[in-house]
Amino acid sequence: MADQHKILLDESELPTRWYNVIPDLPSPPPPPLHPGTLQPVGPDDLAPLFPMDLIMQEVTQDSYVDIPDEVLDVYRLWRPSPLFRAHRLEKALGTPARLYYKYEGGSPAGSHKPNTAVPQAFYNKKSGVTKITTETGAGQWGTALAFACAVYGLDCEVWQVGASYDGKPYRRSVMEVFGATVHRSPSDLTESGRKILADDDHHPGSLGIAISEAVEAAAGSETSHYALGSVLNHVLLHQTVIGEEALLQFAKVGDTPDLIVGCTGGGSNFAGLSFPFLREKLAGRIDPVIRAVEPASCPSLTRGTYAYDFGDTAGLTPLLKMHTLGHDFIPDPIHAGGLRYHGMSPLISHIYELGLMEAISVPQLECFDAAITFARAEGIVPAPEPTHAIAACIREALACKESGEEKVILTALCGHGHFDMAAYDAYLGGTMVDEDVPDSRFAEPLTRLPQVDL
Amino acid sequence: MADQHKILLDESELPTRWYNVIPDLPSPPPPPLHPGTLQPVGPDDLAPLFPMDLIMQEVTQDSYVDIPDEVLDVYRLWRPSPLFRAHRLEKALGTPARLYYKYEGGSPAGSHKPNTAVPQAFYNKKSGVTKITTETGAGQWGTALAFACAVYGLDCEVWQVGASYDGKPYRRSVMEVFGATVHRSPSDLTESGRKILADDDHHPGSLGIAISEAVEAAAGSETSHYALGSVLNHVLLHQTVIGEEALLQFAKVGDTPDLIVGCTGGGSNFAGLSFPFLREKLAGRIDPVIRAVEPASCPSLTRGTYAYDFGDTAGLTPLLKMHTLGHDFIPDPIHAGGLRYHGMSPLISHIYELGLMEAISVPQLECFDAAITFARAEGIVPAPEPTHAIAACIREALACKESGEEKVILTALCGHGHFDMAAYDAYLGGTMVDEDVPDSRFAEPLTRLPQVDL
Repeated sequence: MADQHKILLDESELPTRWYNVIPDLPSPPPPPLHPGTLQPVGPDDLAPLFPMDLIMQEVTQDSYVDIPDEVLDVYRLWRPSPLFRAHRLEKALGTPARLYYKYEGGSPAGSHKPNTAVPQAFYNKKSGVTKITTETGAGQWGTALAFACAVYGLDCEVWQVGASYDGKPYRRSVMEVFGATVHRSPSDLTESGRKILADDDHHPGSLGIAISEAVEAAAGSETSHYALGSVLNHVLLHQTVIGEEALLQFAKVGDTPDLIVGCTGGGSNFAGLSFPFLREKLAGRIDPVIRAVEPASCPSLTRGTYAYDFGDTAGLTPLLKMHTLGHDFIPDPIHAGGLRYHGMSPLISHIYELGLMEAISVPQLECFDAAITFARAEGIVPAPEPTHAIAACIREALACKESGEEKVILTALCGHGHFDMAAYDAYLGGTMVDEDVPDSRFAEPLTRLPQVDL
Repeated sequence: MADQHKILLDESELPTRWYNVIPDLPSPPPPPLHPGTLQPVGPDDLAPLFPMDLIMQEVTQDSYVDIPDEVLDVYRLWRPSPLFRAHRLEKALGTPARLYYKYEGGSPAGSHKPNTAVPQAFYNKKSGVTKITTETGAGQWGTALAFACAVYGLDCEVWQVGASYDGKPYRRSVMEVFGATVHRSPSDLTESGRKILADDDHHPGSLGIAISEAVEAAAGSETSHYALGSVLNHVLLHQTVIGEEALLQFAKVGDTPDLIVGCTGGGSNFAGLSFPFLREKLAGRIDPVIRAVEPASCPSLTRGTYAYDFGDTAGLTPLLKMHTLGHDFIPDPIHAGGLRYHGMSPLISHIYELGLMEAISVPQLECFDAAITFARAEGIVPAPEPTHAIAACIREALACKESGEEKVILTALCGHGHFDMAAYDAYLGGTMVDEDVPDSRFAEPLTRLPQVDL
């Protein structure tokens, strides 16, 4: 068992392959559909948006994909990331449970997002495009892509959700330090944005709207592509370096997790940590419970319906079979902006339907309460998103205190909260409240499938 | 030579002793004087402010002081810190120089400050006090002490320089997350503060004023002590873990620095990295140039006078023999708040007088220009303070590009800039200007030594 606080890997132990869980599942996830034909989308349908290398990764049946040397070289700036044994938190809680957290906050963006931003920028550069467009909610994905584009000499244009642009100006500053151009979304630069501004010229925006804008901007230019920071198979694939490292780190200390918890917005952080453990579980070598934690305001897994829906608000994306609250759903404005997405990664949705994982939702006051306890014990101020995983971890650790069980809990600590201090101000100042929970209408299947050309 | 980006140490390689450079110097530094008697201060004079363990460390003639297990246990949350080889920056600059940086931004406060905050809180707890007061400029020291007090269950009261309190509200939030109480300085809670507020009820404050307030608050209570984040011998002593680790890390890759650069405000970051290398230099084993880098606005080493002066504005501290711009000097408000101190650590001042190190000053536009280059290459956004060291490093690296010299340069990267993005906004927005440089009157010795009781 780990006596040390940090379980480190040497750069020579950095995984050299990403893991694709799909071939190991009892059945494959349903394919994305073209909204016009309702037929599965093919590589050609995606070519205006993504380079062919990424499209091939999106549909690959191989269990492993080699990480290019040029990507490994950049990963080494911050990877392998540390696995921490939370000795001080265990003591503060008085729990017999053994708590571990895998920390991604040491990356250039302060979160797990560069794990996919770097390869996405690399493959785009290789394909000859000169600019990548994207959206960002909390700002972490935009920061990651801005850095990755700086590395490979690409232009980067980011549509930042209006509420975040207004409330987190320093996130914009970081993107600009890394050389990106940042627009407030909705903007007057796209048709999707102008439509919304016509009704409300200071609309707070949403992730779905910002996706529409970035997709529209990329689709209109031959030298531009679009990049998505979560949801899609290739994004989840890239994030599996997290879990592969964690497996090596647990092996080093001779321990095994009984429970893995991670927050879910689009699902990439959760998938990145848990999929390699799921492989081991499917092979019968370990048997951890794998639990997604979502915000009470945006509970796509626990209260959404499993149906084909658009990934964005304007209906420009393919139809994705996923747990969704409806593509026009605008969740209550909680502080965990990165979790305010109406849908869920189709691959995670499928795994959830297969019964291979669980999901719970947690309200934000409990999350910030957990975050303060965590920060004072471990010295890391978490981003609002992973406070959900920390809250779930603390719930379990306190249950172990009651039962005496020495459960081993692994938490995905996907980023720091240095750009989210307004949320902590609200919590400490007593102005934060628990969010509105969507009502049961979202449990109804979506029957309307609009006919929209890509 | 290091092919990898990160040169890591295992927790088992964490130094277990702090290094005291004083016995290795050709002569000891002049003692602090009691401002009333002009006689050297004794331990009893300092007892109202500091616990006896720290007072003994302040005057020890031992070359090494054991780090208590309880402190090592907390250090292990983030130490040993990484040494990075800046391959990507070298490539971006096209220099044959080999660039390394020792990064302290992974600590709970995001800077080197917890290295001394933790032992200071530990010894205070051991002495039975229940509260520690302090000042903070940029906010990094206050954050570090807030965390350290949380670890040992002490109350923490911080006077934050007014301009910083107003301009960096999120630094206050972090201190509050760690459980500290934060006051804007000057405050109406102290005599020193009230005097200044009488003339200007929204005075922007200064580090000297905030020190006066925190000292006054501690001296007035039997259960309170004061803690200082730089300048004093025991603070520099605690920071030597940085340099001891760096020596081990250079040995691992078989390289040796020819030049060590660090920014200096009070001097603790610079001392922490360089003193262990100075030991090796004095022993004739290596011969690096050791260079302090200060802001053009506050050039105590390069334009100050070497004289006895107060450490604070109100004249409550002992008189310290140091390079000073005068204890009533208020430097131009640059963004590197942590370097806006009128004096310099007496120990560093003495070493500078002995000719064992150099000093230069750099204006802030050059610093931020260097910081942008650094961030885009290495993925770390530096705090405004260490941008001075980065600028000095880049000057040398470009000189090596001209000369073809393969110089090995070690830079002290003492913290990240996540709470300093307003400075980057000013730089990128074109509103940042170079600061006023103090005129030569500061080269005159100070002749007035006010008679003030402690």
